[in-house]
Amino acid sequence: MSELADTPKPPFYAVIFTSMRRQADEQAYQETAARMLILAARQPGFLGVDSARSDGVGITVSYWESEDAIHAWKLQVEHSEAQRRGRESWYSQYSLRIARVERAYDFQAGT
Amino acid sequence: MSELADTPKPPFYAVIFTSMRRQADEQAYQETAARMLILAARQPGFLGVDSARSDGVGITVSYWESEDAIHAWKLQVEHSEAQRRGRESWYSQYSLRIARVERAYDFQAGT
Repeated sequence: MSELADTPKPPFYAVIFTSMRRQADEQAYQETAARMLILAARQPGFLGVDSARSDGVGITVSYWESEDAIHAWKLQVEHSEAQRRGRESWYSQYSLRIARVERAYDFQAGT
Repeated sequence: MSELADTPKPPFYAVIFTSMRRQADEQAYQETAARMLILAARQPGFLGVDSARSDGVGITVSYWESEDAIHAWKLQVEHSEAQRRGRESWYSQYSLRIARVERAYDFQAGT
């Protein structure tokens, strides 16, 4: 990922997913993570995503038009299976926080 | 950072800070970033923080009891100066999103 998500004016919703990985199954994890980004972007109501991982901590924040859009993505078939494998194999720990974005500010350095 | 933030039951607030760095002034940036985590943790209403950076994208999510607590942290003197230096020297781009966390779920793998 090389750009920040560009979201519309609030209000909208954010899913803040923070995780710690287990040391296992790296290739399948990477492939699935990449696939989930592609699938999420096809979901109705998807607004963008930011993702980073360092020192064992991963953070993925996805942005959505509505809670209904988040709920539909949670239930998407391939995503449901990825969630199951995540709990079974890939993550030692994670937290999921659903939040309503109320204010937003952007900064861009002058050229 | 080696643990995920452990926040109380919602509702509470999250500040989602996503950024792209300029290639400059790395040591001062790292020192200031570390100092800001220490100072934030001393602020009234601070609940925790998660932070990661990869492929040029940084994500720091801090959690707060209230919007007033977020506002007080924004105005904290050393933090205000760090924000100024961030715009002047460290970031090519950033977004700041203030969100109300409404639901949260945690997963911990069995041992």
